[in-house]
Amino acid sequence: MASTEIEGLVQALARLPGLGPRSARRAALHLLKKRESALAPLLQALGAVADRLATCGVCGNVDTSDPCAICRDDRRDPRMLCVVEDVADLWALDRSRLFPGRFHVLGGRLSALEGIRPEDLTIDALLRRVAAGGIDEVVLAMNATLEGQTTAHYLAERIEAFPVRLTQLAHGLPVGGELDYMDEGTLAQALRARRPIV
Amino acid sequence: MASTEIEGLVQALARLPGLGPRSARRAALHLLKKRESALAPLLQALGAVADRLATCGVCGNVDTSDPCAICRDDRRDPRMLCVVEDVADLWALDRSRLFPGRFHVLGGRLSALEGIRPEDLTIDALLRRVAAGGIDEVVLAMNATLEGQTTAHYLAERIEAFPVRLTQLAHGLPVGGELDYMDEGTLAQALRARRPIV
Repeated sequence: MASTEIEGLVQALARLPGLGPRSARRAALHLLKKRESALAPLLQALGAVADRLATCGVCGNVDTSDPCAICRDDRRDPRMLCVVEDVADLWALDRSRLFPGRFHVLGGRLSALEGIRPEDLTIDALLRRVAAGGIDEVVLAMNATLEGQTTAHYLAERIEAFPVRLTQLAHGLPVGGELDYMDEGTLAQALRARRPIV
Repeated sequence: MASTEIEGLVQALARLPGLGPRSARRAALHLLKKRESALAPLLQALGAVADRLATCGVCGNVDTSDPCAICRDDRRDPRMLCVVEDVADLWALDRSRLFPGRFHVLGGRLSALEGIRPEDLTIDALLRRVAAGGIDEVVLAMNATLEGQTTAHYLAERIEAFPVRLTQLAHGLPVGGELDYMDEGTLAQALRARRPIV
């Protein structure tokens, strides 16, 4: 129906997460109809990123500079290091603006099922950063999944040897969570980690 | 958090229909991580379309050529003309591969509420196409909405004067539709337009 070029655009859009074939066509049509206000800006934005895309050699973040904006930011506390599985997790935590320190991206989590071993992640680089000193606290911010927690456990054992405070994100009821809708695992976690009311 | 370029990409993606801020970030991250397999192809596809984008001077379709691929296709029956509100409708009908003729895109539908009058649509161009002759049947394929049907009614009155067969899409139960889940309007339409079982 449409030309090869338009079909190519629909297919490229359909490969984005969150866009199926139907929404990719809608998005493509939107771009075609709003050439100046949608297609041109997206083209320009993609080009700008493509030209300068880099993986941060320090923390593993993706950015348009190496080291990334976070690692270069002097206002960030270099004594606090937050370890995350993925760049998406780094972005999520950074959006909250609650963590004042720097990050380390593992590039995944240990998984017997998928055959991901310690040497497949940036664990050696993490240990070198910790060994280099100047870090007071390492926050393990793995996902609250079985594999995430296995990874956190493994990292804890490796980092224990260093003179740093080792912490992990709290587990329990999410804000707004109603007990009636919580799974048993969350309830068990929330009960086990209950805290005294001061 | 991210650089201006990445933030710009997230914002350009977030303006696509079907992508909110969160899914735009996910899509951006996907592009950043898969530079060769996702970012480069999308950039290339957008560029290829942007360079050649055109609105068909005959039917109003958007394509990378003018006249569009459908109007240039000799295998299409020039004696059948299907009138649609929007390019998205043309694409939807064309995907079904059930209509062998050509199209005419009105560019919207009459709307007292939005102040869209006949002269705001490509109705004059449509009447010129019909008046030029060589067309046996005009199919009015407006949406089954109040405004779509008002538009169809208006077009029918204008086209009546010409020696063509004038038809419209059938209304009734959609395929797989269960009576229990249908709105009253659809049920009323299906009942009113009931057909004898031969």
